[in-house]
Amino acid sequence: MKTVQLRLPATSANLGPGFDAMALAIELYLEVEAVAAPRFSIVASGRDQSVCGALPRNLLIETYESVLAAEQRQGVPLEIRVRNGIPLGMGCGSSAAVRLAGVALASVFGDLGWGAAQIVERAAQLEGHPDNVAACWHGGLTIAANAQQLAIVSIPPPPRWRALLVLPETPVPTAKARGMLPQSYGRQDVVMSLQCVALLTAAFAQGRADLMHLATRDRLHQPYRAQLCPLLPALLPLAGTHGVMSVTLSGAGPSVMLLTKEPEHGNGTREEALKGAILELARPVCPIEILPAGLCREGATMSLAG
Amino acid sequence: MKTVQLRLPATSANLGPGFDAMALAIELYLEVEAVAAPRFSIVASGRDQSVCGALPRNLLIETYESVLAAEQRQGVPLEIRVRNGIPLGMGCGSSAAVRLAGVALASVFGDLGWGAAQIVERAAQLEGHPDNVAACWHGGLTIAANAQQLAIVSIPPPPRWRALLVLPETPVPTAKARGMLPQSYGRQDVVMSLQCVALLTAAFAQGRADLMHLATRDRLHQPYRAQLCPLLPALLPLAGTHGVMSVTLSGAGPSVMLLTKEPEHGNGTREEALKGAILELARPVCPIEILPAGLCREGATMSLAG
Repeated sequence: MKTVQLRLPATSANLGPGFDAMALAIELYLEVEAVAAPRFSIVASGRDQSVCGALPRNLLIETYESVLAAEQRQGVPLEIRVRNGIPLGMGCGSSAAVRLAGVALASVFGDLGWGAAQIVERAAQLEGHPDNVAACWHGGLTIAANAQQLAIVSIPPPPRWRALLVLPETPVPTAKARGMLPQSYGRQDVVMSLQCVALLTAAFAQGRADLMHLATRDRLHQPYRAQLCPLLPALLPLAGTHGVMSVTLSGAGPSVMLLTKEPEHGNGTREEALKGAILELARPVCPIEILPAGLCREGATMSLAG
Repeated sequence: MKTVQLRLPATSANLGPGFDAMALAIELYLEVEAVAAPRFSIVASGRDQSVCGALPRNLLIETYESVLAAEQRQGVPLEIRVRNGIPLGMGCGSSAAVRLAGVALASVFGDLGWGAAQIVERAAQLEGHPDNVAACWHGGLTIAANAQQLAIVSIPPPPRWRALLVLPETPVPTAKARGMLPQSYGRQDVVMSLQCVALLTAAFAQGRADLMHLATRDRLHQPYRAQLCPLLPALLPLAGTHGVMSVTLSGAGPSVMLLTKEPEHGNGTREEALKGAILELARPVCPIEILPAGLCREGATMSLAG
């Protein structure tokens, strides 16, 4: 009996000016194990167990079945175990990870024989945009450009760069966050964004922590989403303090990603001071959860046994 | 008697989607030698001698004097020798090189004691945009973002990447080329540009020739300038053939830059075939000059003697 094991990281898209263009993979994982079975079952542990383990209306199974149906394959039911470390509905790439898992399982159990490019392409179609999906599969800071085929390039994270996700209590649907955006932008704002996103890409490639604050300025989506995501304006002043390189909305929000650079010799004191500063700035806004995590050099892994 | 020697490269800005955000330094040089003298004189050799050697209305001397006047310094007149290898009025960064030279000479002969950052900053102010100036000074593919201080990062060119400038007969004033552009852009075009400029930056950083064709697609300025720069649409089909990675308008045009990747073992045949293809495509448009050149790892150099 074939057993498939998948491990897929969380991803934080946009990083300010990289709007719909890039995402960063973070060491918080969705782990999935699946084996053919007489009927569908799913057992979930970790975060948001009730959503991850729900039957029917399970995004993983829906994705699996819709891919097989589209390819006109008879799908076998699956017995699935999920261990979820990715916050749901928070802009941390949970649906990209689930969709990739569903597509990958369809490829294996439907004998589609898809390679990485096809799996990513299909999951991106289902998501409606490629940024989280590409970063989830490839790791690092991944840039994805729409073309006839997706063009994808991944930059490994510089050493000692880490992320800190700050989550509010209440999720925001991505569709709602997208509805806040204007249809067009003035030339000055566009030029500033092009400068910043190029600077950001180069700063990652060269490990230039000193450029990250300037490089993550955004005028295209964050200002319009701040109303739905009040944590962002509250935490933006942290950039440049406590080792914080940048403060950006994670995807369409509502969570916020801080990137930090660790000192060469561990400094627990600084991390505690930073957490204190975050709690203080967030207190007037809403209760929060703080999730520190490393940045992924590797992307998703898939292994087959049996 | 103090002698200052400067060598400043040509620069090709924008590279498609890097509109007002980046430029690439090319091994075609403006060389300037200056020494204090009782009155201004200038001797020019190389390209466009009559413009480079003209007195009055010489951009080099005007820049030198305007900087000194702004800093309330008494300037000494200079005896100047210029050897120019940068085409004028073609979108190859000639004015950025001249302005940098003028500011650098003002810093030396006016005892302003400016460092690189101040020289670049002032020249960028005079140019009105930082892309060519920053690349001319720093070399490589240089990204410059406007902020309180310019944020600049330079990526060395990958080995065996080369440029080929294709120049029409007639210059186009930059101001006219800028007047063709719209004031605002739709969100889809903006997102495509962000994706491409990030891809382009990463492709340079990783030497990914395979991504350059897709990464240099542009919807923000090239389509609007094609009318003034008819060589661009004529030559665009060359991307992906004869070792050509990309075809972009050089700055605001009218010249076009092709980037090529040389095979590991020299291949004169391919270069001849490419030149033939360029000539054939350009024939219905206008007479042209083809200028092959390497990409600069280093930027401008300045030396003082005496």
